[in-house]
This record gives sequence, structure tokens and C-alpha cells, in this order.
Amino acid sequence: MPGITDYLGQTPMHELELNPSSDWRQRLGALMNGAIMQRLITLLIIINAVILGLQTSPSIMTDWGTPLLILDTFILTCFVIELALRFTARGIGLLRDPWAVFDCLVVGIALVPASGPFAVLRALRVLRVLRLVSINPSMRKVVQALLASLPGMGSIVMLMGLVFYVAAVMATQLFGQSFPEWFGNIGASLYTLFQVMTLESWSMGIVRPVMEEHPLAWLFFVPYILVATFMMLNLFIAVIVNAMQSTHEPNAEEQAAATREQAILDELRALRSEVAELRRNSP
Amino acid sequence: MPGITDYLGQTPMHELELNPSSDWRQRLGALMNGAIMQRLITLLIIINAVILGLQTSPSIMTDWGTPLLILDTFILTCFVIELALRFTARGIGLLRDPWAVFDCLVVGIALVPASGPFAVLRALRVLRVLRLVSINPSMRKVVQALLASLPGMGSIVMLMGLVFYVAAVMATQLFGQSFPEWFGNIGASLYTLFQVMTLESWSMGIVRPVMEEHPLAWLFFVPYILVATFMMLNLFIAVIVNAMQSTHEPNAEEQAAATREQAILDELRALRSEVAELRRNSP
Amino acid sequence: MPGITDYLGQTPMHELELNPSSDWRQRLGALMNGAIMQRLITLLIIINAVILGLQTSPSIMTDWGTPLLILDTFILTCFVIELALRFTARGIGLLRDPWAVFDCLVVGIALVPASGPFAVLRALRVLRVLRLVSINPSMRKVVQALLASLPGMGSIVMLMGLVFYVAAVMATQLFGQSFPEWFGNIGASLYTLFQVMTLESWSMGIVRPVMEEHPLAWLFFVPYILVATFMMLNLFIAVIVNAMQSTHEPNAEEQAAATREQAILDELRALRSEVAELRRNSP
Amino acid sequence: MPGITDYLGQTPMHELELNPSSDWRQRLGALMNGAIMQRLITLLIIINAVILGLQTSPSIMTDWGTPLLILDTFILTCFVIELALRFTARGIGLLRDPWAVFDCLVVGIALVPASGPFAVLRALRVLRVLRLVSINPSMRKVVQALLASLPGMGSIVMLMGLVFYVAAVMATQLFGQSFPEWFGNIGASLYTLFQVMTLESWSMGIVRPVMEEHPLAWLFFVPYILVATFMMLNLFIAVIVNAMQSTHEPNAEEQAAATREQAILDELRALRSEVAELRRNSP
Repeated sequence: MPGITDYLGQTPMHELELNPSSDWRQRLGALMNGAIMQRLITLLIIINAVILGLQTSPSIMTDWGTPLLILDTFILTCFVIELALRFTARGIGLLRDPWAVFDCLVVGIALVPASGPFAVLRALRVLRVLRLVSINPSMRKVVQALLASLPGMGSIVMLMGLVFYVAAVMATQLFGQSFPEWFGNIGASLYTLFQVMTLESWSMGIVRPVMEEHPLAWLFFVPYILVATFMMLNLFIAVIVNAMQSTHEPNAEEQAAATREQAILDELRALRSEVAELRRNSP
Repeated sequence: MPGITDYLGQTPMHELELNPSSDWRQRLGALMNGAIMQRLITLLIIINAVILGLQTSPSIMTDWGTPLLILDTFILTCFVIELALRFTARGIGLLRDPWAVFDCLVVGIALVPASGPFAVLRALRVLRVLRLVSINPSMRKVVQALLASLPGMGSIVMLMGLVFYVAAVMATQLFGQSFPEWFGNIGASLYTLFQVMTLESWSMGIVRPVMEEHPLAWLFFVPYILVATFMMLNLFIAVIVNAMQSTHEPNAEEQAAATREQAILDELRALRSEVAELRRNSP
Repeated sequence: MPGITDYLGQTPMHELELNPSSDWRQRLGALMNGAIMQRLITLLIIINAVILGLQTSPSIMTDWGTPLLILDTFILTCFVIELALRFTARGIGLLRDPWAVFDCLVVGIALVPASGPFAVLRALRVLRVLRLVSINPSMRKVVQALLASLPGMGSIVMLMGLVFYVAAVMATQLFGQSFPEWFGNIGASLYTLFQVMTLESWSMGIVRPVMEEHPLAWLFFVPYILVATFMMLNLFIAVIVNAMQSTHEPNAEEQAAATREQAILDELRALRSEVAELRRNSP
Repeated sequence: MPGITDYLGQTPMHELELNPSSDWRQRLGALMNGAIMQRLITLLIIINAVILGLQTSPSIMTDWGTPLLILDTFILTCFVIELALRFTARGIGLLRDPWAVFDCLVVGIALVPASGPFAVLRALRVLRVLRLVSINPSMRKVVQALLASLPGMGSIVMLMGLVFYVAAVMATQLFGQSFPEWFGNIGASLYTLFQVMTLESWSMGIVRPVMEEHPLAWLFFVPYILVATFMMLNLFIAVIVNAMQSTHEPNAEEQAAATREQAILDELRALRSEVAELRRNSP
């Protein structure tokens, strides 16, 4: 993924100077990816996080509302300018990098007027704080390792989706009329089955009341719980193990084995050159 | 399991033509297992899944009930014809393949008249959608890997069954009279103990009320929880780890070690041929 | 553990005949450990399990109470005779085998008159069914593998005990007066903290009510939950992994590596004998 | 960590005698770290644990209050003297060892007068019992292995903190006005989201009531649950696996491989010396 590594990779300055054809766009790109700019943006994000937190308190908003709003707008402006400069430096190709798309989205949310039907967008503005992930290389690596495991998990994710859908259709048909709140339609059934999968109040809250009307309901729910929790645990553990293996470093024994094998190879090559010398000397 | 790999294995066309004795049954089998037929069936299953979902909504059934029923019957007819053709091509031996048995069962459910005592079968018709697993090789592989781990888990499954049964008999004898709803008979006790094993409302919902009558009930439930959750976790993790190991591919270090060992072997053989030459030359 | 392997190890008959000094006690021991006796006992245990299950139903006891009791007493007599014969064959040294002690205990419980203060022992009689574990080698192996991991876990078990005790004393002092039902004494606190560790109703049931009196109670419970669940998960996973490793068999790559290394060694030894021959031939 | 290993490492006596310049401070340090002193302190801690447990019972305090208090004060005095002697032996540098800081803290708590605003400190005095961990080498090793994994987990801990903070700000803005008890301010939201992450009553207790006012609330909570539980499981498993690997010992196959490789190397060196001899003999 060259786009990703370039996005915040710190191009060394001397490399730019060695290359006389590097124009102002390259210099600008190097500046934007430089360590100073990165620390500045990190600082702005953290200040912004604190401001967005303070803004949830009505009493603080009464006393300090205006300065907080001004500071928030100032930081937002900084982010917009930063992204504009990045686009100037790298062109529209920047959008090939998913982290840049993410940055544009979370900054863009704040620019939509959050009123009327879009009032909920006001709450989404705090997603801007997640830019800390895209700007911090080690956190970005963790997220990438976890996301990178997902495609290989395609089969099991599809399998889970299938099990959920089939169970939801069955539950709606079996219990929908008696318990419309929980199983009235496929959406309600999907939510209730997700709750049952997390084991929250599945028996006292859901299945025992259902069993008073349909005494054999456990024939549906107990196998569902076994299959669903098992597949979810399977999915979680497989993703975690894959992500851990991709960052696995050889342990002491593996290194010792590699050293021993290298010693054998060295010894063997020395021996071979001695035998070659022997052949030259032999009549 | 040759039956399984044959069931959807795509026999190459040229192979059939090279073999002059291949009659129309072999050609039919090849057609049924071909990529085109597979995609067609997958498409029919997905459309069927959507229809079965729409049929759970009373308002949609009022407006579109008849066309949906016709389409559903049409797809069901396609599935019956498909299975009939498979049997024509492969004979009754097709039933040696567990996936074919599964296909026959889930299609067969829809043919039983779902009325009177069999009304619940109507809800089971959505199981037909699970044919997606039997027709999709990668999902089938995941399910097979998980199922293949189960036989090796026989001892721990038997152990869990034993613990459940013994605990249910004890709970029925100890608490059955005071709490007939939860522990009135072995079936009720088994269900309640399954709920306790999932930790759902075990204390506030079950054990605290029981302890008001039998203050020492925790002496039964706390050890039971430790043993049952531990064995269940053990079973789940062992099956997952086994399934993951059966699809494990050698990692970078293992490949590097194999390369080094091969280099040693090559080096050694070259040396040996040189020594052999030396012997031939020596007087 | 020779006692354990001997207990049910099937001494081959010919060995006994080759050894002329083998007296009737050895023959009896061989008979008791033979495959026929093992299957007979297994059958008796399973029949006994069914009887003990049927005895929990009042309606069945009304109709079939007397024959069930007679059958139960007959099987119990068989078990007592079996154990007596084992002691005759092996002497008191049989008690060095923990499984034999277990067998004696669960059979012995049934001999204590279950009336008056010992009425609860009637419920413990079903523990007899757990003899299936001691008589079935593969289930016994699983239980032994799990138990064998526990001593190595001593430190973490002690650590958990310590954390539980310290938390219980603190909770009793902090919340005992306000919530005597949950934290009235150390025993009540230990039970409540076990419930909190399993995450059952910890917040809605326990901590939110407590926080209405002591608003800072979360400072005690949130760290406790993190530490306790983490250590419990750690303990469970460590025991499972240890038990799985003790039954681990080398996988394909490890076998391939062993084969390659053996090939190198063979090649090397052949080369060495050739060089030795060269030396003999050299003047 | 030399400070840590020194803290309780038992300096052998003869070493002190061989070194004539070892003064009384060294002798004192050796005495404090000696096996006898360690057992004495362990005994005092256990007696103190029992006393602190008994002190939670009002009835026991009425009967035995004064002797228990005297014994508690005596043991506390012993701990203070012990720490004073350690400081005399090692000087202020003892505080470089985190375990010594821990000991000072938990002993120091008891010296603060626990009255008025500090009444809660009385409950913290039982933390003194945790000195068992710092004085028992094997428990100290377990705790150190777990803590040592945490720094490497920095990224994922930061990521979890970020997800918690962002979710809490969003929940406060979205649901704060309708449900002030659960989401009234960031603190309340953080607690509720922690509860939701542990899956305790998340649906029946929190999300279903919220969905009656905000029908789309599941769009916030279901992704939050997936992300938060997944990251928490990831963190726990990664720490456990790291701690287990740091105490991993080579298993049978790894040792067999090492033995084979060593045999190859030995064989090779013997061969090489033979070839060298051959060269010396060749004309």
C-alpha cells in the first residue's frame, strides 16, 4: 500500500535537495508529512477533543460558550487548510489513500449545517477526534492489522449473516404474532437475536416468557445460542490471532535454531573449499 | 471424502470427450456441477431468501401475496428438478454425500403440507436458504473444518453431558419442591442449568431467590458455574484452535528455516559428488 | 502414576500364565480390570443413571417406585461387591490411586442412611454416575490433563484468592452498613464479588443502587472488574493451553523439518564414511 | 531490573564474609532479605489478614475488639520497623524498586489518622495484605509478567480510550437530554458505556428503553458493542499470550530439533578435521 505509507511517511530532506527537479509541491508534501506538522496536528486534535467534551456540559456552555465555539471554529479551519494543502501537494490522487478519505469525511461532517433533519450530524462531529488514529503511526498499524484480517474472514462473516437472517425469518414466523415487540418483523427479530447472542437477559427476559406460550421454544433458542456464540467467538479469535501473527517476531528458540542452521551452512562451505583445494593438489 | 469433492467438483469438459464411453449421465452430472448451473442456483437461493423474508410482513403479503407465492413455488420447482437431475446423473449413491442429504431435507420440508400439526414446518422452509452453504465451496470448507473438529472432542462433549445430567438430577432433588418452575423436573433443571452456564441472571434471577430458602445453595451453584463455564470455554477454544490449525499455512520464519535446511542439503550433495570424484582420481 | 495406569490397565492373560507364581489375587485383579468387567460396570452405571433420573419424577415413583428401588439397590450391591473384589485383589494399596478413592467415596455416600440431618446426602447419590469418568479411559485422560495444569497455576490461583479476600474485606467495610444483604459480612461480600466477576447484573443490579448512596463506588468496582475478569480469563486460558499442549502432536511442517534434518544427517554420515575410505586408500 | 531482584534476593552469607569491607549495613540488608525474615513477614501478613477480616464483624469486635486492635497495632509496628531497617540498609535508593514503593504506600495508609474526610482510608488498610505478592517471588513474577506486557499494548489501550471518549461525547449529545441518569454528562456516559461493553443489561436495561425515544439508537449501540467488546477481548488475549510466551519453555519437538541440529554440527566438525588430516597427509 504505497499510498498509505507515503501519506505520513517522513521524506528525508536531503533526498529532496539531491533531486533538483523537486518543485514546491514536493517541498509542501514533505512539510505536511514532517514531524513538526504531525505534532502540531496531534496537539490541535487533543485540544479539539477537550473542547468537544466541554461543549456537552450545559453549565460550561453558559459561561464559556462563545470562546469555546470560536476556538472550535479556529481548529476546524486549521484542519480544512491542512487538508487543502495536502491536496495541493499530492493532487486528487490523495483519495486513493483510505486514511485520507477518512480524514476528509470526519472534517467534512462539521461543514454540513447541523440543523433541521441533519441535527444528528452535530453529534457526529466528535468523530473528528478519531483523526488521532490516522495521524499516529502505531495506532494506525493496530487498526490496519485488525482490518487486514477481515477479508480472510469473509466466509465466516457470510456464514454468520446467513445464520442471523435465517434465524430472524424463522423467529418472526414462529413468535412474531405472540411477541410483536421482540419478533414483530425481521428488523425486530434481528435486534433481539443479536441481544440473545450476547447472552443479555436471553432467558429471564426473552425465552422464559416466550416458552409460556410456546413450550418448545427452547428447541429454537438453545441451538441458536450455541451456534451463534460459537461462530462469533470463532470470528473474534481468528481475527485476533491473524492480527497477532502478522506482527509476530521470532522468539528466542527460533533465533537459536536459525543461528545453529547458519553455523552448519558456514561450516559446510568452509569444508567444501578445503575439499576443492585437496582436489587441486591431488595428482 | 470423494463423494463430497465430486458433488460440486467441476469435471473439465475435455476429459469427458477424451473418454468415449462417457454416456449422457456423465454429461448431465458435469452440467449440474458446472459453474453456470452453480451461479444459477446461487441466484435462485438469494431471490428465494428475499421472498421468504418479504413473506413475513403481513402488509406486503396483502399487496403482493399471490405473485410472491407463485415465484416461491416456481423456485421450489426448480430446486426439485435440480435435485431430480442430480439423482438421475449420480443414482441413489448421491445420498452418501452428507451435503446432498442436507439439500434433500431442506427442499423436502417445503413439500410436506404445512397445516394442522405440521404448521410449524412452514417456519422451517427458510432453512432452504442454508443451501447457500452447501453450494458455496469456501463456506462449506469453514463448516466442514468446524464439524471435523467435533469427533476429536468426543470425550469433552460426553464429559459435559455427564456434568449436566448429574447436576440436573441433583438440582431437581434439592430445589425441585421449592422452585418447581425452575427445577420441577429434569427437563426444567437442564434448561435452568444451561441458563446458569451462560451466566444469564444466574445470581439475581436464580441463586439469590434459591438461597433465601436453602442458604447453602451456593455450595452447589458456584462450583457448577466454575466447572461448566470452564469446560464450555475449553470445548469452544479447542474446536476453534483445531479448525484453525487444519487450515494453517507456514509462516515466514518456518519458510526461511526450510530454505536454509534445503541449502544445507544441496551444499552437502555437491560436496559429496566432489569427494566421489576425488576418490575416482585417487590412485 | 503407576497406580492409575494399573487400576484399569488390562493385564494380558498370557503374562499371567507365563508367571507360575501368579496366585488367585493376581487372576482376580486381571479379571476386574478386563474388558468384559469394564463393559459390564459401564452398563450398570448407565442403567443406574437412568433410574436415578426416573426417581426424580413423583408420578413415576408412584407407579414404579418399588421395582426402581429394588433395581437401584441391586446395582448398588454390585458396585459394593466390585469394590470389595478390587480391594481383595490389590489390598489397601488401592487407595493410593485417587480414582479408586473417588469410586469409594461416591459409592459410600449411598450407604450412609439419608435421613434426619443427612437428608441432603440423598441428592449426592447421583454423583455415583460420575464413575463413568473413572471407568472410561479417554474421559479420564481429559480430566487428568485439566487437573494436571492446576498445580502450575498455583501462583495465579493464590493471587485470585488474595484479590477476592482483600476486595471482600474492603467491600464489607465500605458498603456493609448500607447494603447488608449484599455486603453484610465477608461471606456475603465474597458471593457478591463472585457474581460481579461473572458480570451478572453487576451494574443495574448492584453497582447503580450502591452508587446512589456512595457516588464514588465505581472507583472500587470498575478496577475490581477489570482485574478479576482479566485474571480469571488468564487462569482459564492458561489451563486450557497447557492441557492442549500436553496432548499436542507434531504438525505437517514440524514433521517435514524433522525429515529434512534427518536427510542432512544421513547424507553427512555417508560422506564421512567415504572420506574415511579415501583416507585408508591415500598413501 | 537489578533493584527488584536485589530487593528480596538472598545474598549468600559466605560472599559477605569473603568481602572484608562489608559493613553492618550490608549484613543488615542480607538479614532483611534472608529466608527467615521472609517467612516471618509472610506469617505476620497472614495473621494480619485474618485480623482485618475478623474486624469486619461487629459481634466479634464487641467481644474481642481490644486484643485484636492491640495485635493489629503490634503487626503494623513490625512492618514499620521492617521498612525502616530496609531503608537503613539500602538508603533512599530503595525507592527505585517499585515493589518497595508499593510496600511503603500500603503500610503508610495505616499511619494516616482515618477520621473525618479520611474515614475511607480505614477500608484501604486491608491493601496491606497485598504485601504477600511483593514478598512471594512466584506471585511477584506473575504480576510482573502481566504488567510487562502492558507497555507493548500502549497502542490498543490508547485506541480503547479514544473509542470510549468519542462514544461518550456522542452518547451525551444524542441521549443526554432524554436519559440524564445514564447519559447526563460525560462521566455518566463513560460508566454506562463501560456497562454496555461488559454486556450487562445492555439491551433490556439500557438500549430498549432508549430505542422507545430514539428508534435508531441501535445504529449507535450495536457497532459500539462490536468494536468495544472486540478490542477489549483483543487486549486481554494479547496481554495473556505475551505473558505466557515470556515464560514459555521449549517443548519436546523443539528440543528434538535442537538435538538433531547439534548432531549435524558435531558430525560436520569431525568430518572437517578428518579432511584436514587428509590434506596434511596428501603430498
